[in-house]
Amino acid sequence: MKATIMYGAGDVRVETVADPTIQQPTDAIVRTVVTCVCGSDLHPYHDMPATEHGQSMGHELLGVVEEVGSAVRTVKKGDLVIAPFAFADNTCPICKDGFQTACPHGGFYATPDTAGLQAELSRVPLADGSLVVVPGVTENDTAVLPSLLTLSDVYLTGYHAAHMARIRDGQTVTVIGDGAVGLSAVLAAQQLGAERIILMGRHKARTDLGIEFGATDVIAERGDEGIQKVLDLTGGYGSHVVLEAVGHMPAYTQSVGIVRAGGVISRVGVPQYEDAPVGFMSLFGKNITLTGGPAPVRAYIDEAIPLVLDGTIDPGKVFDRTVAIDDIPAGYAAMDAREALKVLVTP
Amino acid sequence: MKATIMYGAGDVRVETVADPTIQQPTDAIVRTVVTCVCGSDLHPYHDMPATEHGQSMGHELLGVVEEVGSAVRTVKKGDLVIAPFAFADNTCPICKDGFQTACPHGGFYATPDTAGLQAELSRVPLADGSLVVVPGVTENDTAVLPSLLTLSDVYLTGYHAAHMARIRDGQTVTVIGDGAVGLSAVLAAQQLGAERIILMGRHKARTDLGIEFGATDVIAERGDEGIQKVLDLTGGYGSHVVLEAVGHMPAYTQSVGIVRAGGVISRVGVPQYEDAPVGFMSLFGKNITLTGGPAPVRAYIDEAIPLVLDGTIDPGKVFDRTVAIDDIPAGYAAMDAREALKVLVTP
Repeated sequence: MKATIMYGAGDVRVETVADPTIQQPTDAIVRTVVTCVCGSDLHPYHDMPATEHGQSMGHELLGVVEEVGSAVRTVKKGDLVIAPFAFADNTCPICKDGFQTACPHGGFYATPDTAGLQAELSRVPLADGSLVVVPGVTENDTAVLPSLLTLSDVYLTGYHAAHMARIRDGQTVTVIGDGAVGLSAVLAAQQLGAERIILMGRHKARTDLGIEFGATDVIAERGDEGIQKVLDLTGGYGSHVVLEAVGHMPAYTQSVGIVRAGGVISRVGVPQYEDAPVGFMSLFGKNITLTGGPAPVRAYIDEAIPLVLDGTIDPGKVFDRTVAIDDIPAGYAAMDAREALKVLVTP
Repeated sequence: MKATIMYGAGDVRVETVADPTIQQPTDAIVRTVVTCVCGSDLHPYHDMPATEHGQSMGHELLGVVEEVGSAVRTVKKGDLVIAPFAFADNTCPICKDGFQTACPHGGFYATPDTAGLQAELSRVPLADGSLVVVPGVTENDTAVLPSLLTLSDVYLTGYHAAHMARIRDGQTVTVIGDGAVGLSAVLAAQQLGAERIILMGRHKARTDLGIEFGATDVIAERGDEGIQKVLDLTGGYGSHVVLEAVGHMPAYTQSVGIVRAGGVISRVGVPQYEDAPVGFMSLFGKNITLTGGPAPVRAYIDEAIPLVLDGTIDPGKVFDRTVAIDDIPAGYAAMDAREALKVLVTP
């Protein structure tokens, strides 16, 4: 089968590799219907050292079950399934608390132990916990497939940011970042009842989609100038909630600058830093709550599928380009050049 | 009148100063019935550079209104009142959100602008927002006065930690620190429904009071050894909630080590650091929420007063010594030497 391997910064190749096989009785093999390239795939695309053996890529998947191990009970050959970007048993205390990305028995794709999902076939560990059947839909219902695929990561990552911030009706929510996750966070904030949604981003095609998703204001400025704009829009008090979908330190600093006393900064951009200001002058003095992390999309997906199927939300609009699997390298390049917001991949 | 002035580390004096007067029509003058020494007063007691003019001290007060300015409406001469440790208008959007310690028109006592409250008389700015009348109680009801005084700071600071952590029934809560705030946090966690309360502290007289307040387990060990003990008590998963009532970096590190994935670290110990780990390896990867700050006790006091008066809670047990105002220096010394947990002061 074909699979995507990154050999170093800017060096992504589609190669023929051995088909995956059942390794554990809890595994399933899934044939890809659609997968995609994630903004987080661009981090190694920028800075991965050149390697001889390469790293398999991808963690978003909608597909059809081809085979299941002897212990798998909840999915069967032929089911259309979504694979959340982390696998998990979905039965342990951490999973039951709704934090499946921290399941002690789970893990991530595209690691030395578990291949990535930008491939024609994939092995999914802990299939009962890690695959969600989409009822009443087939792979021929092509109109709805992109939005269903966003439930494997990008939309529900934006949703996680909004959920962890416990957005309440009437609040002002500011989203930092106009990438696919930031735009998803706008849509989620709108779903959760935010009254005002300020989108901080500078790419007009993207912020236009943000407006379509529910943003009421767009601020292109960054840094101190951007902070002042948010304060001006909020009577000087700042934003009740900040959803940070970038992950770099300037976005953190900007979050601290615009959040209202007693407010929440919710991060889903993977931090590219370890230490940050949290003391009296930044978070503590104003009673700011800092939250967020890798989205446990498994916790939200059952409620999200019906909203996609009945048309309440259409998060698949973040895909603005589709490539065949052989053209994945061009997809990475287009996203890296910001020519594409998010690239859908079909086998 | 007599007032408490600190001239440098270890140098606290009680001196005769001019009586305070109404400066703004929104001020009130309050005669002290009881005040006390706070753990946070020990920070300058340790490291304040020697000064010629000194710094007036104190921020906890239960007293009787002596005089009000012309614009004061909700308190009158003769009322028994509690003064929360920060003054605030209690009408602005930040106060209405329940974060009166960040009121843009408010402030703190014992600053260059506003004298401290370890004195016989005090000027309270924004009296309508900053004083809470205790109905049906007089200064002769001495049995209940210590617990009422704790509502100006220490008990409701512990309560704030627990409140911001949104403790739910059945959760495991770990409190770091067996000072008066930590013990108050134990009592608050018990009030808010924690199933198991682990108190991390090493002073037996204090942890015994913690057990009386609701702690189910006491851990004397610190650092990695203390972390392992908490993990052992929680099936390896850690504590849903950590209430951090110390403020030093080792307590932060310990909090990160013992908190469960998806859990909350709520800080009310004033951070003696500005930067701390918050990235993938500390907070983000495990979806840890970091919250807390200076307690807006004004937001909680109306609900707490009846609980004190009907005996549901007796947070005044944190006071284990009483001194007259002339003996405040000895009170500081006793707390500094850990001979006293918290010192009550009568004029």
